[in-house]
Amino acid sequence: MEKLFQEGLGIAAGCLTTASYLPQVLHTWRTRSVEDISLRMYMLLCSGVALWFLYGVVIDSIAVMAANGVSLLLTLSIMVMKLRFGKGPIRAD
Amino acid sequence: MEKLFQEGLGIAAGCLTTASYLPQVLHTWRTRSVEDISLRMYMLLCSGVALWFLYGVVIDSIAVMAANGVSLLLTLSIMVMKLRFGKGPIRAD
Repeated sequence: MEKLFQEGLGIAAGCLTTASYLPQVLHTWRTRSVEDISLRMYMLLCSGVALWFLYGVVIDSIAVMAANGVSLLLTLSIMVMKLRFGKGPIRAD
Repeated sequence: MEKLFQEGLGIAAGCLTTASYLPQVLHTWRTRSVEDISLRMYMLLCSGVALWFLYGVVIDSIAVMAANGVSLLLTLSIMVMKLRFGKGPIRAD
């Protein structure tokens, strides 16, 4: 029972954090405006999520791979839009 | 040895994702400009990270609690700044 609660909590947490990037993808795609978004944040976040995906591969967990695979696609697309829609000289922050 | 590699990978991933929010906090604090940031993203992200923190409490893992406790503070401050510095009528996206 306690194990079930733990698993449920982990699944809910994973779904929320993974889903969270979608509104930013849509927002940025619609507005094409990226000035307020930190490039450094998405560079670190994409690297971290990629390592979490690798962690899922190493511990052989489909759930960890799935959650972080989707997160990686979403955060990468935010980063690509930041680079693509950013105007003027590239600012690292 | 393999266990050590797993642990190291998890720690590196956790450090990167947790640290990633700091540049956005600094960027937003400096510019006071939040239009391009999705409020929905930070609402979902804060909820998810809060559940991950709770998950750390339930499985009694200091590492999970620490990483998500710090992440929660950082993502919450981005959300508070989004609400505080946002001009005009509140837009949910």
